Amino acid sequence: MTTARRDTYTPETLLSVAVRVFNERGYDGTSMEHLSKAAGISKSSIYHHVAGKEELLRRAVTRALDGLFGILEEEHARVGRAAERLEYVVRRMVEVLLAELPYVTLLLRVRGNTATERWALERRREFDHRVAELLKAAAAEGDVRGDVEVRLATRLVFGMINSIVEWYRPDGRGSSAREVRDAVVRLVFGGLRKEA
Amino acid sequence: MTTARRDTYTPETLLSVAVRVFNERGYDGTSMEHLSKAAGISKSSIYHHVAGKEELLRRAVTRALDGLFGILEEEHARVGRAAERLEYVVRRMVEVLLAELPYVTLLLRVRGNTATERWALERRREFDHRVAELLKAAAAEGDVRGDVEVRLATRLVFGMINSIVEWYRPDGRGSSAREVRDAVVRLVFGGLRKEA
Repeated sequence: MTTARRDTYTPETLLSVAVRVFNERGYDGTSMEHLSKAAGISKSSIYHHVAGKEELLRRAVTRALDGLFGILEEEHARVGRAAERLEYVVRRMVEVLLAELPYVTLLLRVRGNTATERWALERRREFDHRVAELLKAAAAEGDVRGDVEVRLATRLVFGMINSIVEWYRPDGRGSSAREVRDAVVRLVFGGLRKEA
Repeated sequence: MTTARRDTYTPETLLSVAVRVFNERGYDGTSMEHLSKAAGISKSSIYHHVAGKEELLRRAVTRALDGLFGILEEEHARVGRAAERLEYVVRRMVEVLLAELPYVTLLLRVRGNTATERWALERRREFDHRVAELLKAAAAEGDVRGDVEVRLATRLVFGMINSIVEWYRPDGRGSSAREVRDAVVRLVFGGLRKEA
């Protein structure tokens, strides 16, 4: 069986097809027609599962956001010196980004044209803010340099991490997920300069 | 006089309008009609200046690329230890990105659907490669950490720098160009950790 049969579709598989199409065409540029063609099922079959493309978007970005916010609930993100918690969170952010690559990619490309997109942007800002607070605490504890303003540092670190979605391909030919994660942690905390 | 008169248009002002519209709507999503409306001149007046929108794209990305490649010709990028040249190049990259913000933004958003876009992507790769070579030389001279693979480090550093176009606003309310530049240089070379 090479093509999915209508009755083998689950909300889960439909979601993964939708996320792929959203990432390829942009959410705005995707119609129910595109989703129907990509999934190989009729539009009415899609409507059997979801109310429309905005529901698919909401489910997809929820998955990415749950992954990211989940990190902050983990023990190592809650207990210990702020700098160590921050390092843990950065490491886990890269892991979640790579494990949920299409979902996080979609989240990062959200523009804000619909209520769901604006909600997703708001949640992203909230997450950024939580990480910025951790960085501020680490600076207050004297473990992080004080000569780069916290909001600016947060933006630049997120810029480095989020850029991974632009080039990482999980086909095993480039860097592995582990190499990427370790490289980010080393660069974010230690920088390029050789440690004395 | 609040609207530009037809005969006050120069290729330069037309280019700056076109770049703004390309960045707002995406290059693919911009028609000559959009450009004509935004510039407040007729399509035939635009054709008086340029052969079409692809020529405007080529001129715009050429401006960004000339700025970036120009850095590599500067004395401090050519003479001295590789790590110092690299630090100079990173600092100047941020300066050029901020000075030519709309042009570099457009360059970074090029997709590769037309010959001009593919040429721009090729030139970008060439620039990335030149910076990667500098990083490799700095590692060989023992001034840069050896535990992050050169290509991966280059990608992550470019990711941090290029992300600036997503949030920097030259309206004087957020961080200044100088603060951004210094923050990038500090984080790229020293990382977040407080130097001992």
